[in-house]
Formats: sequence, structure tokens, C-alpha cells
Amino acid sequence: MLSARHSIRSVAIENGLLVLTWEDSHESRFHPIWLRHQCWCPDCGTPETGVRGIRLHHIDEGISIESAVVEGNGVQVTWPDGHRSEYAARWLRNHCYSDAERARRQVQPVLWDRTLSSDIPVGSLIEAEADPAARLKILEMVRDYGFCKIVDAPANREESQRMIRLAGAQRQTHFGTYTLKKKTTVTNVGDTTGPLDPHVDEPYRYAAIGITVFQVLRPSSNGGASTLVDGFEAARHLKEQWPEDFELLCKTPITCQRFDPGDNSHGNMRWYKSRLPVIRLDDRGKVCGVRMNERQISPLDVPADQVVPVYRALKRLFEILYSEDLRLTLNLKAGEGLLFDNQRLLHGRTGFTPETPPRAVLTSSVDLDDFHSSMRLLQRDLDPDAMHLELQQGMAG
Amino acid sequence: MLSARHSIRSVAIENGLLVLTWEDSHESRFHPIWLRHQCWCPDCGTPETGVRGIRLHHIDEGISIESAVVEGNGVQVTWPDGHRSEYAARWLRNHCYSDAERARRQVQPVLWDRTLSSDIPVGSLIEAEADPAARLKILEMVRDYGFCKIVDAPANREESQRMIRLAGAQRQTHFGTYTLKKKTTVTNVGDTTGPLDPHVDEPYRYAAIGITVFQVLRPSSNGGASTLVDGFEAARHLKEQWPEDFELLCKTPITCQRFDPGDNSHGNMRWYKSRLPVIRLDDRGKVCGVRMNERQISPLDVPADQVVPVYRALKRLFEILYSEDLRLTLNLKAGEGLLFDNQRLLHGRTGFTPETPPRAVLTSSVDLDDFHSSMRLLQRDLDPDAMHLELQQGMAG
Repeated sequence: MLSARHSIRSVAIENGLLVLTWEDSHESRFHPIWLRHQCWCPDCGTPETGVRGIRLHHIDEGISIESAVVEGNGVQVTWPDGHRSEYAARWLRNHCYSDAERARRQVQPVLWDRTLSSDIPVGSLIEAEADPAARLKILEMVRDYGFCKIVDAPANREESQRMIRLAGAQRQTHFGTYTLKKKTTVTNVGDTTGPLDPHVDEPYRYAAIGITVFQVLRPSSNGGASTLVDGFEAARHLKEQWPEDFELLCKTPITCQRFDPGDNSHGNMRWYKSRLPVIRLDDRGKVCGVRMNERQISPLDVPADQVVPVYRALKRLFEILYSEDLRLTLNLKAGEGLLFDNQRLLHGRTGFTPETPPRAVLTSSVDLDDFHSSMRLLQRDLDPDAMHLELQQGMAG
Repeated sequence: MLSARHSIRSVAIENGLLVLTWEDSHESRFHPIWLRHQCWCPDCGTPETGVRGIRLHHIDEGISIESAVVEGNGVQVTWPDGHRSEYAARWLRNHCYSDAERARRQVQPVLWDRTLSSDIPVGSLIEAEADPAARLKILEMVRDYGFCKIVDAPANREESQRMIRLAGAQRQTHFGTYTLKKKTTVTNVGDTTGPLDPHVDEPYRYAAIGITVFQVLRPSSNGGASTLVDGFEAARHLKEQWPEDFELLCKTPITCQRFDPGDNSHGNMRWYKSRLPVIRLDDRGKVCGVRMNERQISPLDVPADQVVPVYRALKRLFEILYSEDLRLTLNLKAGEGLLFDNQRLLHGRTGFTPETPPRAVLTSSVDLDDFHSSMRLLQRDLDPDAMHLELQQGMAG
């Protein structure tokens, strides 16, 4: 039986709009042009496949509804030209654009600081492989917290695809699946043994890595712990303490670059530069993406009178990002891993002592929209309302 | 000998700033914090590799220059703590942040309409393979016009990598390298024979395809011509005729989606949705990206009072996008191809008659930043000033 949320009590046409009253007393109002355009009948086609017969120029801006009736678990609308459209009740409720429903659909990230350490999000790869609900739970923790620790990641390179598949299709970066370890000629700072300040990977790409898939193959016996910082929480601090600096870092493009001499797994020379803000706001003005690696900041290219203010804002941001209050330190063992959102979280590591065989960790990546696709497909089977939630899109805005 | 642009006439310190007067009489002013932070000496490291010793918290906001002298083709600065930094003259000129130099560095796209047809950008793959300067010319035409026709593309799938390499590293999409041809079960509209309105590919991704690499393997004997529309020119028309609609489409997120049942070359089910504006403005308010495929517009999720205005704006945009005045029609033969910027241009095709063997075209893609990387590496050898130009970053903003 359908819940009250998904059951239509009555249908009416008021001031030309289709008005649905639901069994939970919510009222939805749909404009005729919206309904006509979103007719997904076989003739009109659907935007899901992009095989679509209806075009906007076929629809008059002032189109009116001829009649509307409740029919089964949905509504049937008849148009002046005789065309009929059917809409499922649940679909209508999940696309209702009342202020209340639009607010409800927004995913709220759970911001955190070091105090999360006693209760971090944790999941099991083996359970996720056996049970889609367990997998969905992991993905939703990544969505909400920006990360999830995996307690039973494979401790070898051969099975890295199992970890990647947990999140979605692998993104082929210029690094490929990269094993970080101490090397003689260092063109990647990850291959050194010193501590690394929290940073985002590949901020020099137009689209940075979305989800980083991280596996510990062989931990260091002395140091080399992983650190994580919630960039959204850092942005919240900055906004609270220094609102003008926050504004500046939302709108000022900062160039990050990366010259890759071509000794990576793909073997091609690359020279990436991107000129993008540090903090991205969505259309509602909420922080939805963070992008910064201090080591890759290139010459500021801003009007002269902004040089000092932008540097001041960056200094204050780094003070927050590098503070111990925000930092989570995880001593991952061999066979433990992480999924984390590289467009929200910054990651780093503590220094460690070189030894033989050396510390080795593996990173791969999955685009944010591929990760969201995986989550949506699981929700379709397990929690159909959830697949209509409005996800934060990282640096895409 | 260095040109006047790259030769320093004199150096001075005024109001704490380093002031360079160049032989062409231009004056550059650099702030001490900017210079200190961009010291790329072996101890400080460089942002190009990200192996960097200097940190912003090492630099006092009020740092001053102890002394500065012209030394060879550059400037040597000494800091109060005795540290010395060297900057090449040419590098300084190319990073000068005076209003004049910042304006000069901006790449200006060449907007076009159907009247371009008599003089479209054209290049030869074979020449580009033999001569880096010929290759750079092609890439710069794509940068400026959004496309370039290739007269000698391979007419087979096996050599598609030659065309892809012209632009840069291949982007692995969920389609892979895709051959469009008539199929029995159609989940991709490209596989039909009807006409296709101008559209952008994959607007449902958080980062749409950057450069589309297009090859004609076997043209139709009746129709199937390629059409191109300059999205920047369309946006200019919209802004001129309907400024409020232009504003609305710059700031209103429109959801495009794609459900892929998994019968593509990668075999995995995907369900992408992105909620992004149709027109992207850069930090200066200039149009830098366009994203729209009418067939993939999903239910509008905007405040109720914006539903009709947004539909009106979309209708007006499509009227412009689909008008013959803007459309270029190219009858490409077997062995001809295109590189085009999918975050600026819309493409489509005219309808054609089914025949045996069927029309077959091939599309692959290269990320915009990979394309820019290729161009930058060529410029480094052939035209070093050009590699510092400020490129438009498409939908990344």
C-alpha cells in the first residue's frame, strides 16, 4: 500500500494550475507547460534516454489543461489537442517544486572536526559485495561525511578493482592507478617520506578527482598515518571568522598547475593549469566544493589591489585547514582503506621513517557523477525516494 | 636578442613595490608577498611539480624587499633574512598583473554564424603529424573558433588514435570510442536516421566532454550532413535580444539526465544527472561555456514563480540555436573529420536515407584541459608567450 506521501487525495485545476492534495495534506501545484513538457509517453519520449519526440517549440507558453483525473496511482491529463499524459503519483510527489519539497530534497552534509574520531563512518567491502543495502550505506556515508573507512580492503594491487567498483567506474587520470612509494627521482611529492599538509588532489584539472579510492598495501612501522580535514567545515569557520575572506575565495580564481614530465604510468608529458575559485557555492549560495593544494598555487593573476587581500585570505584559510582542531588522523593498517570525496575533503599524511620494504599505498579515482550514478542505481531498487534527492556536485557548482 | 617587451630598462622600489620599466615603456609593479611566494629556487620549489618548500605561513604579510637588481635577463631580489630570489624577465612580463597585461592575456574567441561557411578553419592531420607548428595552428583554431575541419582524417576505426592524439589524451567516457550507426534497438538517438537538432553531448555529466573528435567512416549518399552552431554567438544574440532570459539561463540550474541501460561498449548501467546552468560565465562575466541538449531536459526544479520564465527563456534560446542564420552545414566525405569544442559548439546532423552498408561516423573525446595541455606544450617550444594566455575553461567557469 502506498504511504500517505504518495497517495493523492484529490485533484483540481485552480488558476490554470494542476493542484494535487496528498493524503499527508501537502499540496502540489504544477504549471501546464511543465506537465506538457514532461509527458514521457511513447510519442513524446523521455529525457532519460534522450530519444524524445516533443520539443519546446511544439508547446505554447500559454497551454492549458483540458481535464485531469486521478487514475490508478497517478494522474491523467488531457490536453486541448486531445493528447493524453500520465504521471505516476510518486513521481509527481518527488518532482513537486513547492518550497517545502524543494528544501526537503536537499542533501545536508554532516560537517565534522577532530571530535569525530571516536565515531567515524566505517563499512565492510565484503559485506557491500554481498549486500546492495550495505553498499548503499557506505556510499551514503561518503555522500554525507565525505568519506568512509573500509575495514577489509584488499592489501594488494591486483584486487584494487574491487575497491574501485564499490564506488563506481574508474576515472582514468594521467596517473592511472598510482602506487605511492619512495622513489629516487621525485616529481610527485607523494613519493617522499615527509609529512604532507592537507590538500586536494589534482586541483589543476578543470574537473578535479571526485572520489579517491585509497588502499594501504604496506603501512610504515613509524608514522605515515592518513589525515583528513573536512573542507566544508573549514569554509564554515572561515565564513564565521573572516566573512570577507570567505567571499574573496568564493569568487577569486586561483591558478593551480602541474607539469608532468611523463614518467607516470601513462608515459605522456602533460602541463595542466586551472584557474578556479577555492570555494564553490551552489545556486543557493551553499558551499558545495573545495579545491586547494597550497603547493600548486601559481602566480596570482588578480587586479593589483587584490593581491594582498587574496594572500591574506589564503593565509587565514590555511591556518584553519592546517589546525589540529579540524584534523582527523587515521592509522590505517594493511588491508584497510578509504573512500573520500576529493572535492570536499583535504587529505595528507604524517611523516614516516624510510624502511625496506617501503610503505606503499594505492590511490585510484572515480568521478563524482559516476559515484552518484552508482548510488542512484542502488537507491532505485532499495529506496526510490532517495534517488530524487538533490546532490551536491562538488566543484561543478 | 630579446624584444623590447622582454627587456628590462630599469628596476626600482616604490612604496614597497618592485617596479620594472620595460624597453617598450610598459611598467610592471609587483608586491613583495607575491614575489616571495613565487620564488622557485631549489629550496622553495615550484608549483609546477608541487614539490614545494615555501609555505604561506612562512611569509609575513608585510614582508619587504631588501634590494633588487637587474641581473642578466632577469631580476635578483634579496630579502631581509638574506634569502635570494631570481626571476626571468620574460616570466615576469608574462605574469605582470597590470590591467593592460591582464587584458592582453585574455584569449578572445572569434564568434561566427552561417556566413563563416566560405572560410572555415581547416587543417591537415598528416601535416600536423609531421610539423608541430601545423599541429599548433589547428589547436589554436579550435581554441579561437571552437572547431577545425580535418581534411585527411583516417576513414577507419583502427587509426582513430591518430585523430585523438592530435588533440590530446583520450577521455574514457561510458561510451568509449563510439560508432554511430542505425541499430535495431535504439537507446542512443545518434543511432537513428532522423535529423538531430544542434546539441551538446553529455550535458548530464558534471564535466561534459571537452573536445569531440569526429571522423566520417562512410557518409550517407543522401543527407546526414554535420551541422555546427556557435553557442557563444547564440548566447550573444540572447543577451542582446532578451537580456533577462540570458541572466536567467546563466544562473538557473537545469537538470539533464541520461539513463544508460548498459548496452554500450563498456557494458555498465549508468544513470547520470547534472544540475547546472545552460550558460556559464567566467569571473569577468564573459560567456565561457554552453551546455544544452533539449532532449535531455528533466523536470525543472526551480521555485514555482520561475517555471514559466525559465521555460520562456529556454524557448527563446532554442529559437536562436535552431535558426538557420547561425547554422553551418558541412557535407563531410569519408576521411574527413572535425575537432570541436563541445562546451562551446552545438552539433547536429541532417536526416538521411537508410542504406546498406549504413552511414557510419566515429566520435571520441578529449578533456578540455588535456587539449589545453597539448597546446601549451607546443607553445612552450614554438611561441612561449602564448602559453601564458588565459584560456576559456568551458563549463568549469
